[in-house]
Parts: sequence; C-alpha cells; structure tokens
Amino acid sequence: MNKLSPLSNTNDADVPSAQMEGMDIHSNVVTPDITRPSSPVQASLPPSPLPSKRHKVAIVGSGSFGTALAKIVAKNVASRPKEFHSEVRMWVREKIVHGKQLTKVINSTHMNDRYLPDVKLPSNLVAVGNLKQVVKDATMLVMVTPHQFLSTVLEEFQTEGVITPGAISISAIKGVEVNGADISTFATLIEEKIGTPCAALGGPNVAQDVANEQFCETTVGAKTADECALWSAVFHTNRFKVSTVQDVSGVSLAGALKNVVALAAGFVDGLKLGSNTKASIMRMGLQEMAEFTVEFFPGSKKETFSEPAGMADLITSCYSGRNKKCAEIFAKTGESWEKIEKNHLNGQLLQGTLTTKEVHNFLVSRKRTYAYPLFEAVYAISFEGRPVKTIIDI
Amino acid sequence: MNKLSPLSNTNDADVPSAQMEGMDIHSNVVTPDITRPSSPVQASLPPSPLPSKRHKVAIVGSGSFGTALAKIVAKNVASRPKEFHSEVRMWVREKIVHGKQLTKVINSTHMNDRYLPDVKLPSNLVAVGNLKQVVKDATMLVMVTPHQFLSTVLEEFQTEGVITPGAISISAIKGVEVNGADISTFATLIEEKIGTPCAALGGPNVAQDVANEQFCETTVGAKTADECALWSAVFHTNRFKVSTVQDVSGVSLAGALKNVVALAAGFVDGLKLGSNTKASIMRMGLQEMAEFTVEFFPGSKKETFSEPAGMADLITSCYSGRNKKCAEIFAKTGESWEKIEKNHLNGQLLQGTLTTKEVHNFLVSRKRTYAYPLFEAVYAISFEGRPVKTIIDI
Repeated sequence: MNKLSPLSNTNDADVPSAQMEGMDIHSNVVTPDITRPSSPVQASLPPSPLPSKRHKVAIVGSGSFGTALAKIVAKNVASRPKEFHSEVRMWVREKIVHGKQLTKVINSTHMNDRYLPDVKLPSNLVAVGNLKQVVKDATMLVMVTPHQFLSTVLEEFQTEGVITPGAISISAIKGVEVNGADISTFATLIEEKIGTPCAALGGPNVAQDVANEQFCETTVGAKTADECALWSAVFHTNRFKVSTVQDVSGVSLAGALKNVVALAAGFVDGLKLGSNTKASIMRMGLQEMAEFTVEFFPGSKKETFSEPAGMADLITSCYSGRNKKCAEIFAKTGESWEKIEKNHLNGQLLQGTLTTKEVHNFLVSRKRTYAYPLFEAVYAISFEGRPVKTIIDI
Repeated sequence: MNKLSPLSNTNDADVPSAQMEGMDIHSNVVTPDITRPSSPVQASLPPSPLPSKRHKVAIVGSGSFGTALAKIVAKNVASRPKEFHSEVRMWVREKIVHGKQLTKVINSTHMNDRYLPDVKLPSNLVAVGNLKQVVKDATMLVMVTPHQFLSTVLEEFQTEGVITPGAISISAIKGVEVNGADISTFATLIEEKIGTPCAALGGPNVAQDVANEQFCETTVGAKTADECALWSAVFHTNRFKVSTVQDVSGVSLAGALKNVVALAAGFVDGLKLGSNTKASIMRMGLQEMAEFTVEFFPGSKKETFSEPAGMADLITSCYSGRNKKCAEIFAKTGESWEKIEKNHLNGQLLQGTLTTKEVHNFLVSRKRTYAYPLFEAVYAISFEGRPVKTIIDI
C-alpha cells in the first residue's frame, strides 16, 4: 500500500460491502502472523514513477523459467490493483507454430506449451512479440532471456524513450562474464547498458516445479531496501518464498559458482565416496564461493551464501543438477566433456565446465589460484588430466 | 612444538641424520602450504601442565566413534613425541568375550571388532578397564561415552585426585538435556561436574568411514584459541580435517538440532516432493538451528552453522541418516514411531523425535514456540497428528 488506508485497523467483517469493492485487502508482502527473528516485515511499497502511481511489470523472456516467473508475477500484481497495473507483458520471439503466430497461441490458450507444458497461465499475462511494446511504460523489468539474446535485447533498450525513466530491473540470468582480469555479472552489464538499477534473483528453482507450485525458496539481491520490497511484493507467494538481501553480486555469483562445486560433487559420487565426504566437499565449495565473491566483489556479503540462492541452490545442484550428473559420468567413464555433452545433453554445453574455465583464467590473471584449491582441483581434473580421485586432496 | 627449535629454519636435507633422530619433523597442525583466506595457521602448541611438559590424551569411551577417534589420536600423538606422551589409554567396560577379557583381546589383536570391525588400531592405543587408570595423568580427556553412562563416569571423576589439575576435555556426545525452561549441553555438564574446560566436537563423521580414512571434515568448538590449537593437533589429519571455532554451544547444539531437521527432510522425501523443496526445508532448518542457538546460548555464533558441524553434518543427516530414513517411513506408512523403532532400529530410540519433544517443551516453557515454525511443525506432525503434507506450510 502506498499510504495507510484510513480503514487499515478495521476488521473486515465490520466493513460494509460497498466500501470493500476495489479495496486492497489482500497483500502478498511478507507480513507473517508468526514473526520470526529473521523475517522482514514490510508495511508499504515504494511509489511508482508513473503518473498512475502504479507499478507495471514486464517479463523480458519466455523460456521455461521466464514463463514460470511470469505466472507468479501476473497472479501477484492482479491481487494488488491499487499498486500495480494488472497487465503483465511477456516478450515472446515471434514464430509460426502450426500455421499460427506463437504470441496468438499463448494469448488464446493461456499456455506456453513449448517451454512449460500443462501449466495454465493467468489471463492478465500477455505475450508480445515486439520488444519495445513489452517494456512500454514498464517500471519493473524482469530480465530472463537466454545469454545469447541479451546483448541484442539491451541494444534495443538503449534507444532513447524505450525504457521508462525511474524503472528498475532484475536479472534471473545465471553465469558471469570473464575478460582477462575482469569479471562481471549480468546484473552489472544490464545496469551499465540501460541505466536501470539491476537486482538479481536466484535459488533452488527448477522452472516446472516452480510453475506447478511446489514449495521452494528464492533470493532477491538488490542494492536498496526499496527494491527488495518491490521485488518481494512481485515474486513472493506462500509456495515461492522470497528472501531478500542487499547484495546483488552475492546472489549473482552464487548462481554461477555453484556449478563448479556441483562438478566436484559429481566426481565424489562417481568415485562412490560416502555421504560424509560429499557433504564436506559441498561445504568447502560453498566456503570458496563466498570467499571468492567477497574477495573480488567489494560490498558483497558472506551471509548471502546462507540464503536460498547460496546453500539451498547448491544442495539441489549437487544432488540432482545436470552438472553433477555429467561429472559423475566423467568420473566413472573417463569420457571427454564433448562426448558427455553430445550423448547426455543433446549437444548443449554444460554451464559448470565453462564457469570452471572462466574462474580459473580469472584466478590465473589475478595470481590467486592458490587461494581456491577446490575450484582449481575441479579445473585440473576437468581439463588437465589430474586424476579424479584427487578431488579430496585439497 | 612448545618452543621453536633452533633448527626450525633448516632445510631437512641439510640436517645430519644423527640430528634427525627423535626430532619432531612431522607436524599435524594445520599449516597448509596453500594459505587460504580462512585457514588458521598454527605455529606452536600451548604447554602441558605435566612435569614432563608433554600432553597426555585419554579416550573415555570405546564405541564405534570413540574407537575411530582413538585411532586418529594415537597416530597423531605418536608423530609428535616432543609434545605428547605416546601412550593413549581408552576406557573399555571390561567383559568376558569367548572366555577372554575384552581389554586383553583389544590389546593383543589391536582391533575392536565388536564396534569397529576390520580396523587395525595403533599399538600405542591401550584398552584399560579401570576408569581412574584411564585418566591417570591425562591432560586431555576425550569424552565419548554413551549418554546413559556419562553420569556414572563423571561421578567417578569427581573423586579428588582423579583428574589432573589443568586438564582439558572435549565432548563428542551429541544431544542436549532439557529440564523445563533450562537447556544444557553435555559440554557444560562435564565442565560443571569435573571442572575441566570442555570443548565440543561435531561434523559429518560416520564412525566406520572415519576409521577407514574416508575424507571428511569435523569442527572443534572450544572457548579459547589454546584449546582449539591443542584439539586440532590431536585430531586433524589430511583425511579428517578439523576446523575450529570459539563456540562450544554452537557445535553442541548443531549436533542435537540437526536431527529435528532430518525428520523434516524425511517427511519431504516420504511425500515425494522435489529436490528444490528439500533443499529449501534444509536451509530453513539450518537457519532455525542457528537462531535457536544464538537466542538461548549467549555468546554462540551464527557462523558456526556454516562449519562442518553445522551445514555439512546437516546435509549428510538429511540424505542418509537414520532419522531421515525413519521419518520417510513415518510419512509413507503412517506407522507409529514405536513401531518404526521396533521394526527398523531393533528397538533403539530415535534421537530426532526425542530432541523434537525436548525442544518443543523448552519452547513452550519459554513462550517462544511461534518463533520456530519448522521445529514446531515437526513436533506437531510427529506427536499431534498434524498432516505430514503440512510440513511446507511454515
């Protein structure tokens, strides 16, 4: 609520029904009746820069995770008509499917069957093919495109007048970009290119499970409390619990580095070492993730790695992610990564091996390889023929 | 080393062999050649109170974990003859096995087959039946008896002259004791009864795996840096990595409360919820563990729960511990705990349900149930007929 309603202390049962209409009685902001020591309690939302005073959310991307997030966002904003425009636009790359435009199919069936089968989408979620139309008047941009489209999208957004002044953004794109001794996150890239403050979202969030409303947590990392409050209002449900931290880099790096540790976990599984060994390797991995982030991203916080984007995402990646599964095959068979990707991922590239290489190159150029023995062991085992069984010699 | 040797800067290759004999060249203290941001580097050990200036370690207990720890300790102290007495005594409750005294069997075969099959023990580890003999001149007591023997043992130790003045102790006994609004750890109990400062040890440490030198980590929580250094020297190997924290309560509580969270993880598995849900529940559980400890044990630290005794022990308990397995059966079959314990544990009692009840009773008497929704959900599901599927309604 932008302002406290004069009726805010009134019991619902006492309010005449005429007064109830159109009122913002329901709220998705985290105001639990159980107040935990660590629960943020939020009273009202920061104002929108639009003349309507209402925020408007756009989803830039419509893959499985983008569509799953879009479903949540559309439901949430519809329940708060005083604070949000009800319509949520989602960018869909137009194509013809069975003789029909994909956007029209999505908008008439309210399904995105190609990426998120069997999930009914809210009718206030509208698929739009034109990027500029998607973000027209939007004050909150959810960036969830595949990496390879991001630069084209950002270029289009750089045209004057496309992005609403005062808009904010959030990146759900995982990974980091390394150039020699420089490392940067997609949140930073987005912020630099289009000028919107950019938060990051991460957690143990398999798209189909999120869309099916299986219980899980996620973390929003943003620079300010206002951004945290807004993104929390947009994403939080009682099945998709949002925790917030004022640490964009921590959330971004956790999502990238967990894949390196997942490879280590896969090696441990491939070697059939026990559950104590695996738990220890995972913990040491999380510690290196936190140390790396705190060392190279000033202002980021070790505690972020205890949040859903850190510990919880790491656990699920080390038990059921594809990086761990492929690393297990690598340890058992000695096959090359290329062969494993071809046979088990239909030729898609593993994120973990890519990040391992990038992190290694970065550490080499910073002369800091010695400080990250687990990351370096994963690199040497993956790319230099170091025996897999030496994963525990760290 | 008590003092720096005048030869300490001398390269081994330059030292005449006569000078090498009996020298303490090897060290088990954590002095990695790779210095990590978080690695403690220890130069020398605090002095022993004995006239010999050497420490003497006694193991009070000889179950599977006690014997596994004893094996490590005996090997470690033998490699540092200047700082430790070589003989390590281990308390064995005397009994006749195949017509022979158990202590004699252990001391002649160097095996403790009843509790730790197929593991060869060092010859400087000596089984002793008489409790007072076990701790005679001991300056470091490793307390690793079953709960039910602890009070008898401590009574015997209270006789004047039994415990060496200046001795320290460590508890590897898991669990807490609740009396109404009071809660206490075994470390506190030991310290109060026999006057030795008492540390705590915990981590993902299945006895047989530790004895077989499978790689894992453990945490020593002690009040002072001196105690941390001594226990680290005694326990650390490159297969049993010791991290130290100056937080006895944190390590003790982690070992007790993890079993409550393991029940929640078992419920999630029994309900066949996905790996994202399980990872989220585990993370929320670790958070409640840390909050509970910090709230009720002033001076304890949230960060301890990122150590092996926290996160790593929790992971292994939630994936392969018996509490999680029995909770999974409970969720799937609806059988009573008694029946599950009878059919799956040969009538042994589950630690997790006991701790859940104790924690609940404690929170009731402190009027703080509302602040620990996960612990309370586990209690209500376990003992009040609340549907298992509501484990995620927290």
